[in-house]
Parts: sequence; C-alpha cells; structure tokens
Amino acid sequence: MPVFTVDQLRELGRSLLMAAGTPPAAAETVAEELAQANLVGHDSHGVMRLVQYVQMIHDGFVKPTAALEVIQHGPGYAVLDAHFSLGQVAAAKALELGLEQAQAVGTATILVRNCNHVGRLGSYGEQAARRGCLALMAVNAPGPGGVAPFGGIDRRLGTNPICMAAPRGDGAVVLDMTTSATAEGKLRVAFQKGEPIGEGLLINSCGEASINPADFYANPCGAILPLGGGMGHKGFGLAVMIDIFCGILSGSGVARTDLPRGANGVWLQLLEIERFLPRSVYDMWMDRYVAHLKDCRLQPGCAEILLPGEIEQRRRAERERDGIPIPEETLRQILETASRLGADVSFLSVEG
Amino acid sequence: MPVFTVDQLRELGRSLLMAAGTPPAAAETVAEELAQANLVGHDSHGVMRLVQYVQMIHDGFVKPTAALEVIQHGPGYAVLDAHFSLGQVAAAKALELGLEQAQAVGTATILVRNCNHVGRLGSYGEQAARRGCLALMAVNAPGPGGVAPFGGIDRRLGTNPICMAAPRGDGAVVLDMTTSATAEGKLRVAFQKGEPIGEGLLINSCGEASINPADFYANPCGAILPLGGGMGHKGFGLAVMIDIFCGILSGSGVARTDLPRGANGVWLQLLEIERFLPRSVYDMWMDRYVAHLKDCRLQPGCAEILLPGEIEQRRRAERERDGIPIPEETLRQILETASRLGADVSFLSVEG
Repeated sequence: MPVFTVDQLRELGRSLLMAAGTPPAAAETVAEELAQANLVGHDSHGVMRLVQYVQMIHDGFVKPTAALEVIQHGPGYAVLDAHFSLGQVAAAKALELGLEQAQAVGTATILVRNCNHVGRLGSYGEQAARRGCLALMAVNAPGPGGVAPFGGIDRRLGTNPICMAAPRGDGAVVLDMTTSATAEGKLRVAFQKGEPIGEGLLINSCGEASINPADFYANPCGAILPLGGGMGHKGFGLAVMIDIFCGILSGSGVARTDLPRGANGVWLQLLEIERFLPRSVYDMWMDRYVAHLKDCRLQPGCAEILLPGEIEQRRRAERERDGIPIPEETLRQILETASRLGADVSFLSVEG
Repeated sequence: MPVFTVDQLRELGRSLLMAAGTPPAAAETVAEELAQANLVGHDSHGVMRLVQYVQMIHDGFVKPTAALEVIQHGPGYAVLDAHFSLGQVAAAKALELGLEQAQAVGTATILVRNCNHVGRLGSYGEQAARRGCLALMAVNAPGPGGVAPFGGIDRRLGTNPICMAAPRGDGAVVLDMTTSATAEGKLRVAFQKGEPIGEGLLINSCGEASINPADFYANPCGAILPLGGGMGHKGFGLAVMIDIFCGILSGSGVARTDLPRGANGVWLQLLEIERFLPRSVYDMWMDRYVAHLKDCRLQPGCAEILLPGEIEQRRRAERERDGIPIPEETLRQILETASRLGADVSFLSVEG
C-alpha cells in the first residue's frame, strides 16, 4: 500500500481543494484536519473525503467561499450560520470563538447551523483540551440519517457522534464516539472488502439482524442499530438529545429532506479549567485517576485498560514514524479527481 | 401491596427527615424529590432511600444543617461546596442558581463538590426544561463504584449517570440513564426477589459473565459492565469523561476511599433556548421531529417508538390516578425507622 507523510497528505488536500475553488486559508484548515485524521488512524475522516468534498463543491452543496455569520451572541455563547461553507472551516472558527469566550468569561456555548461535515470531532476536542479547557462537542445529521430508533426498523436518525475531551499532562483524554452501534464508515469499509461485520450493529430492510454490510446499502435499505444492544434505548436516547441540542437549538433542524448527507448541526461546550479549580489540583486528580483505572485485573484477551483516545495517540506515534498508508483504490480516486481539476500533485512520491 | 398518594409519601419523608434533625425547608425539598421519583416509577430513588438517609445522618456522612458555599463564580458559572448536606437540597440550589444565571446571561455551568446522593437526575432536567432551558446534568461517584472498565474485571467506576432534557410543549423530553449496562438499584431489586438478571450486565469476581445478581454482592464481589456490550468502550468512555467533568472539575475527586457510597460530584449545564432561537421555531422543529420518529415501522414486540422520558410521563399519570404501591418490606423498614425516631406517621392510612 502506498505510504505518505502527513505533510504530503496535507499538501494533497490543499492542492485539490484550491483547484476546486477553495480560498487558501480554508483549504489549509480542511487539509490539516483530513491529514491529522489519517495520522491518528481515522481514515474514514481523512483524505478519502477529498473526492466527496470536491464533488459537493461541484454540486453546489458545499460553498467554499461562503463567510460565517454570527446570528446570536453574548459574552459566553454564540449561534453561527456556516452558510454551507466547508465544515472544518466553520468548526475551526467556532472553536476559536469558543476559546476566546471561555478565556474571557470562563465558559462558552457555540452552536453552528447550516454546517457541512466537520470531520473528526476528537480533533477539536483535543485542541480545546490542549488550551486548558474541558470540551464537549456533538453533531447531528439534519439530513438523511442511517440509524433506526430503538424498537424501530426504518432510518430515522444520524449516527450523531459526541466528543468529550480533557487535558492530561501535555496531552488529552479524548472520547469520540457515535451514539449508534457503529459508524457508517466502518460498514463502508467492510462492504468494500466484502467482509461481514459484527453482530448487533445492523438490521436489514425487514428489520432482521444482519452481519452483511451490503444490507445497509441495498434498496430497500437496512439501518444501523442504536448503541447498547438490549439497552439500545440508551444509545437512541443520546442520539435524540443530540438531535435536539445540535439540530434544533442551532437552527440546523432535524429530519430534513432538503439537505445532503453529511450536513451537521454543531454544539460545542467549553469550560476553562482554571475558573473552576487550580490546574495543579486538576492534574493531581487526573494522575491519580488514570493510575486507578490502569491498575485493574484484565479480562482474557485484553492487554491493557485503554483511556479514551489512547489508541489514537499510539497510532499517531506509529504513523509519524512509519508513514500513513492509503489504499490503492482511495489514492486512485483522489488522483483521478486531481487530474480532472488540473491540480498539481507532483510533490507526491508514491511508494508502493 | 400498600398504596399511597404522592402527598402521603412527601409527608412521610418530611416527618422522618425532620425527626432526624433536618431543617423543615430541606426536609421538604428532599421529601418532594423522593415522592416524585416514586410517582414516575423510579422507586429505587424514592422513599425507600429514607432509611439509608436517616442512617447516614446518624453516622455523620450526611450533614442536614450544613450550608452550601460558593467557592468560585462568574456571571455564567459557579462551583458550589455542598459540605455533605442532603444531596437533593444541594442539587435544587444548584438548579436555582443555574436558572438565574441562564436567565441573566444565556447559559450556566454549575459544579457541586462534596455532595451527597442527589436522587433522580431527570427531575432537575425536567424542571429546567419547563423553565425554558435545554439541560445536561451528570454526576459521578467519587467514592467506591461498582462498574468495571472495558476489558477489566475489578470495580473502578460508578454508574455515572447522565441526564439531558429539553422542553416539548408543556412537558419535556428527558433522557436519564446510567453509562453502565444497568443501574445498581436494578440488581438490588432482582437480588431481593431472588431472580436472574439479563445477559451482558454483570461479571462475577473472576470476570465471568453472570446473570446472578448475588455475584455483585458476594465477597469477593463482581462488577457491573459498561454500557455497550461489545461496544463497551463507549459506555466506559462516557463514564470516564463524567468522572473528569463531574468529579475532577468540581473538586469532588475520583477514586476516593474516604467517601461513603452515594457521594456525588455534579455538573449541571443549562442553555436558555430563547437566546439561541425563537421558542416558536424550536417548538415547530420539535413537533416535526417527534412525528418523524414516531412514524416508523416497528420491530416485532415493540408497540411504539418511545421518546426519552415518555415511560415516566405515563407512569406518573397512572400513579396519580391509582396511587403509588410501596412493597411491604420497604414500608416496614421505613416505619421501623420512623418509630425509632419518634416521627409522627399517623397521617398514613395504609391500605393493604
């Protein structure tokens, strides 16, 4: 599989997005988020998205030159309208505004409406944590979702992910999870490989349990189940509340049929730690807590108790050392798009 | 089974708590929360707790006359020290302060440290929703917990519940769930009845799957599993973040061995809807969303898609009409405590 550096992937993103009409600063922001997602191993939120984003720019769903508008604001909150600019650009601006507010008054609540796919939530959460905040970020899917309600058969919700992040030393503890049993990206990977998925993740169009990811993409289509299995009312409940907090409160809406897949309503909550307690006390408790969790007898097959985000930290170190593998087919599609746009990708020295 | 009105249960709580040395206003607050928990069907958070609270007052863990102290505050946030007063009193004051702040500046973040058991989170969430806010409330267990980390065998976390609430018409949508596979109260009920529990909720002291609730109470003891089954890293991750947000940020701490079971660290987040968008727009989206969720083909055995909190609303209507049943043994223990305290319970006309 071809292997690249994070710098090459960032440059690839910049080049394609600019060739598609994205201003340089916006292209840089999106390219950085995509490359960093690859670096920590979330390839479904990495440069493979370039093909989709370029297509959405072409189709007019993504408006790379649209300016963010502040609709409502106070010292510790704001509602932003992203006007369907690139989602990572809107999310990065929401984070900057939120950090400014949290530094000024202690907390910030930022909602973003009419926002495109923001990418990996954990990235924003980690950035906030590194700047001294606890962060909660969630997004809903105002447009077509792929998840059934608890007890239901039809698609009615998005995978509605939630991220919570907190500093730990120089790094961060970062939870970034869908409130569904699985993410759609994981089904797509299994589908493309022709492999079955685990039990309890999917139902087919008749509502029967399925381990065949093709059932999700069939016509009529199946649906992803909410997180929790027999306790799926909990995952469903979280997804409903995320639809309300992110979709309704932001003004993005819910259950819309006029929006493309991938649109997001965003809720970002920041709490500046030093307003609540001294950072040294926070760090003391965090060290003690991590030691408490790690010092635990293990189930057979479990090598270690892993904190939220710890896998990503290790993947980042590995891929910084070994490079980032990109599947041939993903690369082919990206290069085809680049060629069509006339984007310069000569800086890529592809190693097989 | 004896059946009571909510007024009788409230009076029962007031009488016992005052006889145990609780000031009248505090006794009223706690008694109201307990009676309301029974009314909506959460009997594990109802008057059965009176025996435990009276014992904890006697043992000095609960200090019913302690005053709440404001440790840190700004226009939109505060850290309160409950000084181990009754948890419902501290939570009610946190809610009042939070609502004042949210009305003044749009949002409020309230942390409470050194807090006893606050009872049913959904109650505070629903109160906030009825006053025009979206609410998030979570509590951790700084003291001994009963939940294993994902992949682990030993108890390392509390059941760390989270509540999210939002207005819907005159009522509310209220999610109130533990981030563990089950609540400890449900194990206790099954244990007392001598009944097995569902699969995937519990492991015994050796880490083996168990459906015998006695394994949880055995010596050496078992542990509750995190929410999510094979995806238990998600429930574990939520519980970890709740420990950080509620326990560490509040200053209550985590992994403490010097606190009684039932202590809570509290995080309450309020967002006043009208600051973000007109209530009429919110209501329009909510109506549309509920219709969208309800209009769904159903799995065999599922009669209806239920919103978070909808079961509690129906139970409340039933019990307002039919009365609230209290198991004989629970009543016997409460009356025994009342007798020992010399509390007047003559207003109870017990119907068998």
